[in-house]
Amino acid sequence: MKVLVVYDISDDGVRLKASRILEIWGLSRIQRSAFVGSLTRSRAVDLARKLESIIDVKTDVIHIVFIQPQDWSKTIAIGKPLWARGVLDAVHIL
Amino acid sequence: MKVLVVYDISDDGVRLKASRILEIWGLSRIQRSAFVGSLTRSRAVDLARKLESIIDVKTDVIHIVFIQPQDWSKTIAIGKPLWARGVLDAVHIL
Repeated sequence: MKVLVVYDISDDGVRLKASRILEIWGLSRIQRSAFVGSLTRSRAVDLARKLESIIDVKTDVIHIVFIQPQDWSKTIAIGKPLWARGVLDAVHIL
Repeated sequence: MKVLVVYDISDDGVRLKASRILEIWGLSRIQRSAFVGSLTRSRAVDLARKLESIIDVKTDVIHIVFIQPQDWSKTIAIGKPLWARGVLDAVHIL
């Protein structure tokens, strides 16, 4: 299943660490604080626990959202930073 | 359908303006740069055009993602800022 991870992390170092973890887990960056990839629910829960271990849960927040591939292909992307291409082949650009 | 709007907007004023638009459109904030709500695809396209008109498409990026309600209810939320509650009734908190 498609998994979208969106985070709001205050500390620069922790935010960078989170992005490194997401890259290592094979997710692709679509925004500075948003990654997308394919994970089973079980793997996503493991990832959530890993991320939870590095953030400050009092100030930071992370959402891991599950999306049907056919719904993901309907994503509307506005703006076109280079690194957002490729990941978004099937996506409707306005 | 559930709609998740995630944005990466460089200019503080434009970012604030985007958040105001999303509030006016009835979406609820779940992170500093992420809102969720219920919109038809047609309305979401209207919203996308509205947002596109205020951002700098060369530097900013916005994703409007469509999510089945039953998938949204499986969202994993880590960290618990107050304003993320209520919106996320059905959500699994680790």
